[in-house]
Amino acid sequence: MEFKAIGVVKSQFKSLEEMPIQPTGDLASPGYLEIEESYVEGLKDLDGFSHLYILYHFHKVKQSKLLVKPFMDDAVHGVFATRAPVRPNAIGMSVVAIDRIEGCRIYIQNLDVLDGTPLLDIKPYVPAFDLPQAPVRVGWLDKPAEAIQARKSDQRFV
Amino acid sequence: MEFKAIGVVKSQFKSLEEMPIQPTGDLASPGYLEIEESYVEGLKDLDGFSHLYILYHFHKVKQSKLLVKPFMDDAVHGVFATRAPVRPNAIGMSVVAIDRIEGCRIYIQNLDVLDGTPLLDIKPYVPAFDLPQAPVRVGWLDKPAEAIQARKSDQRFV
Repeated sequence: MEFKAIGVVKSQFKSLEEMPIQPTGDLASPGYLEIEESYVEGLKDLDGFSHLYILYHFHKVKQSKLLVKPFMDDAVHGVFATRAPVRPNAIGMSVVAIDRIEGCRIYIQNLDVLDGTPLLDIKPYVPAFDLPQAPVRVGWLDKPAEAIQARKSDQRFV
Repeated sequence: MEFKAIGVVKSQFKSLEEMPIQPTGDLASPGYLEIEESYVEGLKDLDGFSHLYILYHFHKVKQSKLLVKPFMDDAVHGVFATRAPVRPNAIGMSVVAIDRIEGCRIYIQNLDVLDGTPLLDIKPYVPAFDLPQAPVRVGWLDKPAEAIQARKSDQRFV
């Protein structure tokens, strides 16, 4: 399947080493999504939403692995039980908070994504669709949130 | 960018007309994800998680539109302010609840996806990453959840 970029991520993270692992890892990481002019009409009414899913291409990832040691753990897990970038299809996904939209730019409050990353899609966050109805279990990730938020990305996945 | 299927969706929905719009639209829609044998090692430890994001290709969608009339509304919205399949990149995303995992099969309790849909990725649902920290606004989708759950897909997006 062939997909194309609909825009690009503009963030303060110019290298993988300085990146937070996920948006909630750094609430003060402003940046913006620059949508290609030809797709801007598709943003109509997006400003009514507070949060977005963004799908993007981990364009710096040159390999894929089935077993990985994630950032937050020293044990090996299946890649599909992690959010590691080294996936069979290098597609990343983050929930981000919209600050404001101006023309082709969607300003984001918590943008954990590498500067220059190609955007594949944006979708509104809708609790009626996206909030699990049953209690959530998180397996090996069941550790204090502080442990996650304190960790930064590193070079293991380059 | 070129992506490949990591498996296929096996669901009770053989045509678009009978499909619910989103997983929470039908909590009793069991099905399974059949992961290709060569990727099964990547499922290690996934059974510790209760919920998954699945990313898939809307393979029956033959067009893309920038303005759409979604299922739940009669007004026109930008496609990026909707979850409609007719997107520039026909990538779908759903949060689903894992029932159990057996070999290459991940049994799902609420599978809103068309039978035969190619899977692109699966990621664990992790509240520390995926739950918005600030209050959520849902724009034009701010209507009773019952209105969403009562509606079924139709042919507008074929």
